[in-house]
Amino acid sequence: MKSDAVVETIRIYPLQDIPLIHSGDDLCTIIIKSVHSNKFQLSNGDILVIAQKIVSKSEGRLVNLKQIQPSKRSIELASLTEKDPRLVELILNESKKVIRCIKGLIVVQNHQGVILANAGIDHSNVEQDNEKEQVLLLPKNPDGSAKTIHKKLLARTGSHLGVIINDSIGRAWRNGSIGTAIGVAGLPAILDLKGREDLYGNQLQVSEQAIADELASAASLIQGQADEALPVVLIKGFKTFLDEIPASGLIRDIKKDLFL
Amino acid sequence: MKSDAVVETIRIYPLQDIPLIHSGDDLCTIIIKSVHSNKFQLSNGDILVIAQKIVSKSEGRLVNLKQIQPSKRSIELASLTEKDPRLVELILNESKKVIRCIKGLIVVQNHQGVILANAGIDHSNVEQDNEKEQVLLLPKNPDGSAKTIHKKLLARTGSHLGVIINDSIGRAWRNGSIGTAIGVAGLPAILDLKGREDLYGNQLQVSEQAIADELASAASLIQGQADEALPVVLIKGFKTFLDEIPASGLIRDIKKDLFL
Repeated sequence: MKSDAVVETIRIYPLQDIPLIHSGDDLCTIIIKSVHSNKFQLSNGDILVIAQKIVSKSEGRLVNLKQIQPSKRSIELASLTEKDPRLVELILNESKKVIRCIKGLIVVQNHQGVILANAGIDHSNVEQDNEKEQVLLLPKNPDGSAKTIHKKLLARTGSHLGVIINDSIGRAWRNGSIGTAIGVAGLPAILDLKGREDLYGNQLQVSEQAIADELASAASLIQGQADEALPVVLIKGFKTFLDEIPASGLIRDIKKDLFL
Repeated sequence: MKSDAVVETIRIYPLQDIPLIHSGDDLCTIIIKSVHSNKFQLSNGDILVIAQKIVSKSEGRLVNLKQIQPSKRSIELASLTEKDPRLVELILNESKKVIRCIKGLIVVQNHQGVILANAGIDHSNVEQDNEKEQVLLLPKNPDGSAKTIHKKLLARTGSHLGVIINDSIGRAWRNGSIGTAIGVAGLPAILDLKGREDLYGNQLQVSEQAIADELASAASLIQGQADEALPVVLIKGFKTFLDEIPASGLIRDIKKDLFL
């Protein structure tokens, strides 16, 4: 059985002129405008990787810490971890389980099942002023956000595009964070290779390739994490024609997880 | 402080005609020949990502299970996990610690500190016959292997190339494996972003980007894991001019690890 993915050169293009995003902005309009001004042609199977931050901002997920009243549990955990109790309140609201905590760090499983530090809440690249202490939450339903963007882009461009919402997430055991897919539409987040044959015709045993995470990492090389201001990346040349699997398919079933 | 990485289009090219590799083959000669036949020009800062399997094969890391005599401990662990005791013997030889085991799976920390299933020992893409039951171990010192290849390529091409040896490795909590850097030379495996500023001039808190893992994942999109036979990938357009950090820099210090 041959590979389902067509192997050619993969090209990863930054969209150079995405403006700062505010609540209510229509990302699709902004992306299409940028695609045109960058003189890109969209084709079926092209993939757009969009940084979580601009999706969250467009969805109004900024929260002013000054308006948060922490619960007793948040105050206790804040004391234990030496974190702001209002931020801890938000972290717990976004999570179904606290996995680990130490000074300065709370690792949780969020409502989508993703395990990450501080529920992905961040205040880098969030405008601050004296009136507000703003932090940015992850999108409420990243697979749903990706699906909406995928559908709108299909309606407006006629192209069936893969859409990945990525965030930079830490891992167990390894230093540094890597681009990781938290929302996926229009492509399978994971490829099942079982039954495929190796070079010698032996059946493969290991078996699943998390291509959406690999694409999210590839895009992260361009997006950077600081002042690059390149939140949208276009990937051409990696085409898979299998059915859509959302990012929820990347979350290991708790019954099969040896590390929870 | 501006980014140290130059942002442009990143291109990921397969080297199309790498032959099957055998013990003692000179990978540098094979890669240079392929670069020429593919009509690529090498430049300083280009990155070669090389699949672990061909590095291991060239280094003679094939082992015939028929020649392995399992220890008592290996026989016990094999019984517990329903695995071949000779394979378990090899897994334990390659490891400093068993992290988890269940039926069919032993997760270990290998001598380099990498946590992975079955110590990365594999028999896909390994030739089998009636005389031998061959399995392939990881390179003994992947950072050293990468360094040797980097130096030889510098001597023979005059170009200062990044070299990453990657393998497809599973993760805690998430389904599927992803391309991961096990050997790195000629580029920093990890970027320290501390002190960099975000779009609003705030100092970044989160802080380290595991770029070698992101590059390893990007390459994996082309390498595939089955019959693609594309073990070497050339990445152009991602340039970092910081000092080399080997893949050992990606292993979290055990004292700082919340998951060990």
